[in-house]
Amino acid sequence: RTEIVNFSSCFLQGILERLDAGEIVIGDGGFVFALEKRGYVKAGPWTPEATVEHPEAVRQLHREFLRAGSNVLQTFTFYASEDKLENRGNYVAEKITCQKVNEAACDIAREVANEGDALVAGGVSQTPSYLSCKDKTEVKAVFRKQLDVFMKTNVDFLIAEYFEHVEEAVWAVEVLKESGKPVAATMCIGPEGDMHGVSPGQCAVQLVKAGASIVGVNCHFDPDTCLETVKLMKEGLQAAKLKAHLMSQPLAFHTPDCGKQGFIDLPEFPFGLEPRILTRWDIQKYARQAYDLGIRYIGGCCGFEPYHIRAIAEELGPERGFLPEASEKHGSWGNSLSMHTKPWVRARARKEYWENLKPASGRPYCPSMSKPDGWGVTKGARELMQQKEATSEQQLKELFQKQKF
Amino acid sequence: RTEIVNFSSCFLQGILERLDAGEIVIGDGGFVFALEKRGYVKAGPWTPEATVEHPEAVRQLHREFLRAGSNVLQTFTFYASEDKLENRGNYVAEKITCQKVNEAACDIAREVANEGDALVAGGVSQTPSYLSCKDKTEVKAVFRKQLDVFMKTNVDFLIAEYFEHVEEAVWAVEVLKESGKPVAATMCIGPEGDMHGVSPGQCAVQLVKAGASIVGVNCHFDPDTCLETVKLMKEGLQAAKLKAHLMSQPLAFHTPDCGKQGFIDLPEFPFGLEPRILTRWDIQKYARQAYDLGIRYIGGCCGFEPYHIRAIAEELGPERGFLPEASEKHGSWGNSLSMHTKPWVRARARKEYWENLKPASGRPYCPSMSKPDGWGVTKGARELMQQKEATSEQQLKELFQKQKF
Amino acid sequence: RTEIVNFSSCFLQGILERLDAGEIVIGDGGFVFALEKRGYVKAGPWTPEATVEHPEAVRQLHREFLRAGSNVLQTFTFYASEDKLENRGNYVAEKITCQKVNEAACDIAREVANEGDALVAGGVSQTPSYLSCKDKTEVKAVFRKQLDVFMKTNVDFLIAEYFEHVEEAVWAVEVLKESGKPVAATMCIGPEGDMHGVSPGQCAVQLVKAGASIVGVNCHFDPDTCLETVKLMKEGLQAAKLKAHLMSQPLAFHTPDCGKQGFIDLPEFPFGLEPRILTRWDIQKYARQAYDLGIRYIGGCCGFEPYHIRAIAEELGPERGFLPEASEKHGSWGNSLSMHTKPWVRARARKEYWENLKPASGRPYCPSMSKPDGWGVTKGARELMQQKEATSEQQLKELFQKQKF
Amino acid sequence: RTEIVNFSSCFLQGILERLDAGEIVIGDGGFVFALEKRGYVKAGPWTPEATVEHPEAVRQLHREFLRAGSNVLQTFTFYASEDKLENRGNYVAEKITCQKVNEAACDIAREVANEGDALVAGGVSQTPSYLSCKDKTEVKAVFRKQLDVFMKTNVDFLIAEYFEHVEEAVWAVEVLKESGKPVAATMCIGPEGDMHGVSPGQCAVQLVKAGASIVGVNCHFDPDTCLETVKLMKEGLQAAKLKAHLMSQPLAFHTPDCGKQGFIDLPEFPFGLEPRILTRWDIQKYARQAYDLGIRYIGGCCGFEPYHIRAIAEELGPERGFLPEASEKHGSWGNSLSMHTKPWVRARARKEYWENLKPASGRPYCPSMSKPDGWGVTKGARELMQQKEATSEQQLKELFQKQKF
Repeated sequence: RTEIVNFSSCFLQGILERLDAGEIVIGDGGFVFALEKRGYVKAGPWTPEATVEHPEAVRQLHREFLRAGSNVLQTFTFYASEDKLENRGNYVAEKITCQKVNEAACDIAREVANEGDALVAGGVSQTPSYLSCKDKTEVKAVFRKQLDVFMKTNVDFLIAEYFEHVEEAVWAVEVLKESGKPVAATMCIGPEGDMHGVSPGQCAVQLVKAGASIVGVNCHFDPDTCLETVKLMKEGLQAAKLKAHLMSQPLAFHTPDCGKQGFIDLPEFPFGLEPRILTRWDIQKYARQAYDLGIRYIGGCCGFEPYHIRAIAEELGPERGFLPEASEKHGSWGNSLSMHTKPWVRARARKEYWENLKPASGRPYCPSMSKPDGWGVTKGARELMQQKEATSEQQLKELFQKQKF
Repeated sequence: RTEIVNFSSCFLQGILERLDAGEIVIGDGGFVFALEKRGYVKAGPWTPEATVEHPEAVRQLHREFLRAGSNVLQTFTFYASEDKLENRGNYVAEKITCQKVNEAACDIAREVANEGDALVAGGVSQTPSYLSCKDKTEVKAVFRKQLDVFMKTNVDFLIAEYFEHVEEAVWAVEVLKESGKPVAATMCIGPEGDMHGVSPGQCAVQLVKAGASIVGVNCHFDPDTCLETVKLMKEGLQAAKLKAHLMSQPLAFHTPDCGKQGFIDLPEFPFGLEPRILTRWDIQKYARQAYDLGIRYIGGCCGFEPYHIRAIAEELGPERGFLPEASEKHGSWGNSLSMHTKPWVRARARKEYWENLKPASGRPYCPSMSKPDGWGVTKGARELMQQKEATSEQQLKELFQKQKF
Repeated sequence: RTEIVNFSSCFLQGILERLDAGEIVIGDGGFVFALEKRGYVKAGPWTPEATVEHPEAVRQLHREFLRAGSNVLQTFTFYASEDKLENRGNYVAEKITCQKVNEAACDIAREVANEGDALVAGGVSQTPSYLSCKDKTEVKAVFRKQLDVFMKTNVDFLIAEYFEHVEEAVWAVEVLKESGKPVAATMCIGPEGDMHGVSPGQCAVQLVKAGASIVGVNCHFDPDTCLETVKLMKEGLQAAKLKAHLMSQPLAFHTPDCGKQGFIDLPEFPFGLEPRILTRWDIQKYARQAYDLGIRYIGGCCGFEPYHIRAIAEELGPERGFLPEASEKHGSWGNSLSMHTKPWVRARARKEYWENLKPASGRPYCPSMSKPDGWGVTKGARELMQQKEATSEQQLKELFQKQKF
Repeated sequence: RTEIVNFSSCFLQGILERLDAGEIVIGDGGFVFALEKRGYVKAGPWTPEATVEHPEAVRQLHREFLRAGSNVLQTFTFYASEDKLENRGNYVAEKITCQKVNEAACDIAREVANEGDALVAGGVSQTPSYLSCKDKTEVKAVFRKQLDVFMKTNVDFLIAEYFEHVEEAVWAVEVLKESGKPVAATMCIGPEGDMHGVSPGQCAVQLVKAGASIVGVNCHFDPDTCLETVKLMKEGLQAAKLKAHLMSQPLAFHTPDCGKQGFIDLPEFPFGLEPRILTRWDIQKYARQAYDLGIRYIGGCCGFEPYHIRAIAEELGPERGFLPEASEKHGSWGNSLSMHTKPWVRARARKEYWENLKPASGRPYCPSMSKPDGWGVTKGARELMQQKEATSEQQLKELFQKQKF
C-alpha cells in the first residue's frame, strides 16, 4: 500500500531533472474558475488582481493544490500582461500596477511552495497585443515585462500557456528562453490545430525548435480531446526526430460537443457549466490514460479543484510510491464510506462501484435520473432495515443497539 | 441600481430583531462538502476536526461566505458531538478533543464575523446516541456539552439542524433554550415528514412549542423539494395558530429522483454528484421562490459554494437595497461578459440568455449536448467573423485592429 | 405451455356473459393513428371515410387485430357523427354520407369478426355539437343517428368512448341504452378528472347510473396514467356501492410529461410522437398491471398496432390458456431469436434480457445511446468471434462451416 | 403548388430509361419489419412465407407503398433462397416450397403494380450458403433458382440487396445479369466497408464492373450513415471513371451509436427499437440530402412504413411536379392540423414548427420530456382560453359558440 508522506523528502531537483529521471510531475488546477466561484475573480476579464487585493485567498488555493499533490505551483499571472490589465483598467484600482500583480503572484506562490518543497513556475499567456496585430517586437516586449518580474523573484522555471496561435507561442518561448531557465509551452488547441490551421504536430515541432523542453496542451477541451491532441503532438515530434517532455492540463468539464475553439463557444460558458464537471473518478481515468500515453507532467486547467488534482495523485500513487497529504482526508476509491451510518452507503466503499457508476448526467450513455438504492444494496442490509420498518419503536431501538447503525 | 456597500453599516442587531423587522437574513453554505473538495474533511465520518488541524482553511471558507453575503456564520461544529467524534477516534489524534474542536470552531467564526459584522450561530446536529437509542437524559447531555462551549464563547444564537427525527430535534431545542439565546431548528426531511412518519406541519408545531423561534428545513433535498416542505411547515403552524420565522438551507444539487431519505440514497452520493450541481441561475430562482413563500432566513447546505450564496444576495438585492462585497467581482446576470474578447460570448451578457438557458445536463427538459454558437449569435458578429475566415492573413489583422476583438 | 388455438372454439357468448364469467376480453388498437400511417386517414379531422373509400385497408387492419388476439372489433366510426363529418365537408365527397360511412364500418367489422368469432361493438364519441353547446336534445339526436345504423346492422354491443365531459358521455349512454344492448363507456381523462373538474370516481358513478355495464378510460394518456385513473374509478364505484366491469384502452405512447388534457397538448402531437412509442415489453407490463387491478376488458387506443395487442394476449396467455393466431409468428419473450445467425443476437432470446432492457430512449432512467454488443454477450461467442477475426480467410471459412453461423 | 395526380400518367418506361432521363425513382419500405408488427413475419428467421400463407396482407402492404408514392414494388422475396427456407424448415409447412414463395411474391407485386403502373423488381439477398463457405458454383446456383422464377413471371428489373460481402454480391450480380434485365445492387454496409474490409468505393467499383447499373446501400444504418457510405461509393466510381446510378434504402431508425455491423448489434434489436423510429420530418431531411448528393433512386428499408415513403414523395414533390395518391390524406408539413379543434394544435400547422421540433427523444440534442403547450402557443388563443377558464359555464358555452372551437 502506498504511504502518505511528508513533502520534504520527495523532491529536491529542478523540473527537467525530475522529468529526465522519469518522475511523474503533477501540475496544479484552474485558478480563474476556482477563484471566480470563491468571489475573487471576475468572469469576462478573468484578470488576477486578487494577488494584490486578496492575497490570503490566492495563498489558500495554492496551499490546497499543494496538499492535493501539486509538484508545481504556477504563479497566478494568467492574463497579467500589461496590455490586458490596462484594457480592464476600470476594474483595477490605479495603484494595482501590472508589476505589482506579477510580483505579488510570485511571492505568494514561493511562500506556499516552500511549505512543501514544490517548484514555482512563472507563466505568460496570449496577449491582446497579438490579437490586435501588433508586430513581433511589440508583442515580445509585453512578455519581457512579465519575465523581468519572474527573474527578479527567481521562479524555478517558466510556462508559456493558453496560446491559440503557435506564432505567438513561439515568440513567447523565444522571450522566456532569454532567461536561461527551462521553458514549458502549452496551447489551448484541439486535434484540428491552431486558429491559423497549423496542426498539433507542427505546433509541437515549432515550439521545441524555439526552445521549449516541455510541450503540450492546456484548457479549452476535456481530457479525452486534450489527450488526443497531445498524441498528435507526440507523433509530430517523433516524425521530426525531436525530443521533448509531454504535458497536459485539460478542463475538468466534459466537452464532447464543442467545436474547434473549445468550451468558450458552448452556450453554457461560463455560468452554466456545472452539469459538465468531471467527477474524481473521471479524473483518475484521465490520469491513467495520460500516463499510458507517455505524458509525465500531468495537471489541470479550468474546472480543476483541489480534489481533482488529488485524484491524479491517487491514481498514480502506485507508480510514485506515495500519496499526497490531502489523502489523509480521503479513502482511496471511496473506502472512507465504510464508516458511514447507512449500510447501503457503506456498500459503496469499493472501486468497482465508483468505476462503473453511470451518474445521472444525461450524457449519451448515462440516464438522467437515478433510482435511490436505500434499504438496500446488500441483501442482509435490506432484510435488517425491512425488519426495522415492521417493528415497534421499542424493537427498533433494540435493533439499533445491536447493530450499531 | 443596488449598491455594493461596506459591511459595517448594515447590521447591528440580533437575529430576531432583524427578522422581526422584516429583514432578509442570508445564511451560509455547506462546509463539509466544500472542505472535502478542498482536502480538509473526510467523506463518511464528515467530522470537523479541521477547525483544530487547519484553522486557516476553515477561516478562509467563512470569509468567502461573508464576502458572498452571509449574515450568519455557523460554527463549523457539524457532527462535533462527543459521541460522534469518539466513534471516529482513529481519525482524530488524541489531543484533538471534542471541546477543542468546538472551541476552535467558535473562535474562527467569531474572528471572521467581526471582519464584517455578521452574527455567529452555534450549531448542533443529530447524534449517534439517539440513533443507538440512548434515552432522553443521555442524548441531552451530549447536546449540553456542546452548548457549554457556545456559552463560553458567547455565540449570538443557536441552531439545531440536520435532524431526521423530530423527537431528537425537540430534545436539542429544549437544551439550547436553557441558554436564553434565540434558537432556530431545521430538519433534513422532505414532504413525507420525519423518519417516524411525523408530518412536516407537525414537526414545525412541536419545534415551536419546544421553544424554537425559527423553523425550517436543511440538507437532503434540492430547493424545489425543500420549499415544498417548508410550505407544509408553514401551513401546519398556521393551522395551530403558532408563529415562527421560516428558514431554508437546501442542497445545491438537483434531486428530483430521490426518495424519502434524500440524496444520501442516490447512487451518486457522495462522489458522483457533479452533474447535479445547481448553477447560479438555479439559485436565483430558488431565492426568489423562498422569498415569495415568506421565508426570510435563506441559506444553503451541502453543495452551496460561495458563489451560490452570492446568487441569493444578488437576486434579493433589489429588496435589500445593497449587494455583497463579492459582487464587485460579478456582473449581475452575466453582464461582466460584455468585456469578453469574442462577440458571441459578449452576446451572453444579459438576463434573458441565462434565465432561459437549458444546459446540457440531460435532465428531463434539457438536452445532453449543446451546439457551440461560435461565429455567431448576433448576425453582425457572424458576418464579421465569416469575413474574417474568408480574408487573407493581412486583411484579418486589419479587421482585428478595427474591431478590437 | 399455452397453445395457439383456432378462433372458433373460444368464444360463443356476448360481452357481459364473458365478463361475468370472469373471462379476459381483449380489445383492439388505434385505427386513426394506424390508418394515418398507412395513408387512409387525415390527421386533424381524423374522420373515418376510409370505410367507404378504401374498405380493403380497413378490413385488413381489423383482420390483423383479430389475428393478434382482439375479441372485440370496434366499428371504425370514430368521429363519424353527422355534425363532425359535415364540418369536414370539403374532405368528404358529397356522396359519402354519414350513414354510408357508418354502415360500411359495421359491415366490414362484422365480415372480419365472422372470420374469427369476435364480437362487434358499435362506437360513438364526443361531438362538435356538444362542444358548441347545443342542448341535450340536439346532442342526443346526433348519437341516435349513429345508433340507428348500429341497430340495423345488429352490432353485438355498444361503446361510448373518447369523452372529455361526463355530461356528454352520460347523454351518449342514455341514448345507447335505448337499444337494449350492453353499453360500455370510456372517457379520455386522467386522474384529475373531466374538463369540468368531475373526478374519475364521480364520472364512473354517473356512467353506471346512466346504464353503462362497463366503464373505464381510453386514449389521451399512457398506460401508467390510464391505470391510475381506472383505479380512481374503481374506488369511486366501491364507495357508491355500484358494480361494473372495468375497461382500459390507453395510448401506446409514453406520456409522463403531459398535462390534464393529455397527449394532444404535447408539442410532438401528432407528427413527432415516434420516440414515445411503447415496445411490446412495455405493453406486457401494462397488461399484467391492468389484470392485477381487476380490469378484464383490456385493449388499446392511438398508437396500438397489432403487435401491441398480441403482447396483451401473450402476457395473459397463462391465465387464458391459449395464444392468438399471430403468435405463430412470434416467439414468446423473443425466443424466435434463437434462430438468428449471430450468436450475440441469439443470446437475446430470453425473458430476462427484454424485461430488463433500458432502450436508448433518453427517458429519465434510460441512456440516450447504447453500446453495440456484437462479438459478444456470451463469453463463448466472443471468443469464437475473436478467433475468427484473428484467422485467415481459409480458417474463417472452416470455422463458419463448423459453427453454422 | 404540386398536384396530386393519378398514377397512370406518370411512368411508362423501364427503370434505366427513367433514371437516364433524370427522373427521381422512389423505392418502397421495409417488408419484414412492417409485416412482423402486423403479425405475418417471424423475427429471427425473417422469411417471407406470408406470400403463400397470407397473400392479402402482403398485397395490402404493397398497395400502401404504391399509394405513398413508390415507383418500384420489390417482390417480397427477402431471404427466400432455398437454402435459407430449408434452414427454417420447421416453420414452413412442407407444401410451401421455395418456388411457391417466390412465385406468389412476384404475382402479388405485379398485381398491385398494375393498379398504379409501378415497376416490379425481383430481389435476391445474402445466402446461408455463402456464409457457410460454399463455393462460387454452389452459391450462384442458389441465386439462379430464384432468378428462374423472376424470369418466368417477367419482373421488370432485378435487385441484389442486403449483402455484407462484396464477393457474394458480385456473384449475385453476375447471375442476375444472365437475364439481360437491368440490375441494381445494394450492400448493407457502412463507411468502414464490407465485412472483409473492402471499402465502399471499391465495393461500388466491383459491382459496376460485374454489371450493376445502379449501386448503393440498403438497411443496417440510419440515413445519415447510409448517405455517408453512398458518398464514398460515388467517389470510388468517379476515381475509377465508372458511371452508375446511385440508390439508397436506409433504416428508419436513428443509429448514431452502432458499430461496423449496424443495428443488429444494438441491444435494442429487434424488439426495443421504438424510441429510434424516424419521424416523417426526419425522412424529409433524408430525402433532400439524398437528392442533393445526386441519388435518384431513393427508398427505405427496415422501419420504413408507408408514411415514411410518402414523406420522400412530398419532400421531392416540387422537383417531380406531383404528389402521391396518399397525400390526399396528408397536409404538407402538417397543414391538415389547421382543422383541429384546439387552437394551439392548429398553431402547429406550419413548416417551421415541425422542422424545428426537438422531440422528447432524449437524443443528444433533444430533451427527454416536453412541456405541454395547451392554452397556448399563440397569444390570442391563450387569452381566449384563459377567459374561458375564468368564466361561468354559461359564458363558456357562449364563447365556444362564437369561436367554433
